[in-house]
Amino acid sequence: MRTGKVIIVGGGPGDPMLITIKGLEYIKKADVIIYDRLAPLEVLKYAKEKAELIYAGKERGRHYMKQDEINRILVAKAREGKLVVRLKGGDPYTFGRGEEECLYVVEHGIECEVVPGIPSYVAGLAYAGIPLTHRGLASSFAVVTGQEDPKKGFQAVKLEDTARSVDTLVILMGAKRAAEIAKKLLNVLPPETPVAVVMNATTLHQKTLIGTLKDLLDFANKNLIKPPALIVIGKTVLLRNKLWKKDA
Amino acid sequence: MRTGKVIIVGGGPGDPMLITIKGLEYIKKADVIIYDRLAPLEVLKYAKEKAELIYAGKERGRHYMKQDEINRILVAKAREGKLVVRLKGGDPYTFGRGEEECLYVVEHGIECEVVPGIPSYVAGLAYAGIPLTHRGLASSFAVVTGQEDPKKGFQAVKLEDTARSVDTLVILMGAKRAAEIAKKLLNVLPPETPVAVVMNATTLHQKTLIGTLKDLLDFANKNLIKPPALIVIGKTVLLRNKLWKKDA
Repeated sequence: MRTGKVIIVGGGPGDPMLITIKGLEYIKKADVIIYDRLAPLEVLKYAKEKAELIYAGKERGRHYMKQDEINRILVAKAREGKLVVRLKGGDPYTFGRGEEECLYVVEHGIECEVVPGIPSYVAGLAYAGIPLTHRGLASSFAVVTGQEDPKKGFQAVKLEDTARSVDTLVILMGAKRAAEIAKKLLNVLPPETPVAVVMNATTLHQKTLIGTLKDLLDFANKNLIKPPALIVIGKTVLLRNKLWKKDA
Repeated sequence: MRTGKVIIVGGGPGDPMLITIKGLEYIKKADVIIYDRLAPLEVLKYAKEKAELIYAGKERGRHYMKQDEINRILVAKAREGKLVVRLKGGDPYTFGRGEEECLYVVEHGIECEVVPGIPSYVAGLAYAGIPLTHRGLASSFAVVTGQEDPKKGFQAVKLEDTARSVDTLVILMGAKRAAEIAKKLLNVLPPETPVAVVMNATTLHQKTLIGTLKDLLDFANKNLIKPPALIVIGKTVLLRNKLWKKDA
């Protein structure tokens, strides 16, 4: 029996129309699809009738399947000679742990391919009418996680330094720590700095809060920021007034 | 006659399989398609037989069409009642000037929608086997332009500060200024910092140079870095040894 292979597919942030042609082709061919909660589930309807669909969960604080278990299934199913698609939300290599899964698979002698997906911040901001860059307003941006792995034992994200260095700052997975984030940023940025919070990016439930850095603290204190949320800070937020077309 | 509308579609960085389903649907429906040199030209075969295809050029230092002219055509064709697709490489809102075009169109009373695309750095690095992030190795990244608009009259990109603040630094459109960039970064990062240069991302001509920050200066001095190129600096470059699958 031939050994199968593993394809880690970035499904984009929610709108099923944002998956790539390449990603969809693999969904159609897959013998097994292991999918996350935040993957665009509507694309599963394109799977073969006999494809095995496995839900891997991945909810903050409520993991249905441990990462180890997911890794082991990827390898076991490929060893059965199957084409295994690992469907993720967003992009596998952008805070997606696709690199961990791919490393595990490759180290077990199985071929692994990564199909990039549109990251949540790229599409969520576009749907909210907020460009990441703009000639004259923003020539640089940074993306950081708001939810660092505490097991690392140190603070890797230099939030204040990053905020001072780039024109547009995006914080992913920062819903639960938004008040702390706002306080840190108020140390280095003016309180009137424009801020947007985009929740449930590109889904039918996308919701955007607009304000200033000072308002971000209010939003957090009033518990208005629910995951999944992305927080964006910078002048291009102001362009939403003109560019925003539709949003939940 | 009904007024048409303008859809600004991010076609992704080169591989035509990386356009989204949503982008492709608009290509199929468009009455007019205005496309850039770095857009994935193969997708134009899906255009309607009677669709009008207009080449907008956009080569560094050799613009076939001035931005003003592109803006005017978008509005003029939409006013003829047509569905106008503006096809760009990468993502329209990530150093893509999509925001400028959309603002112009909206200010002229015409509806404009932006369909996000996979940015060159997301897909180019994935194809080169280099994750942007990795638990433990990289919790933040920044993306800056290496080719600032000189008309701004000031230096917006704080290259050294950004390099010191984030774990992975990506410089887009830096081919011509790579020596200058390397020298600046050597002021703040160790010379052995891992570096990759990815040229012609995701096309059949993708080529990757791997080395250190010190090597980047050599690559530049030997004129090995040709546009379009993306330069990535950080520890995740080292994962390519295991993750890289295929590359030109």
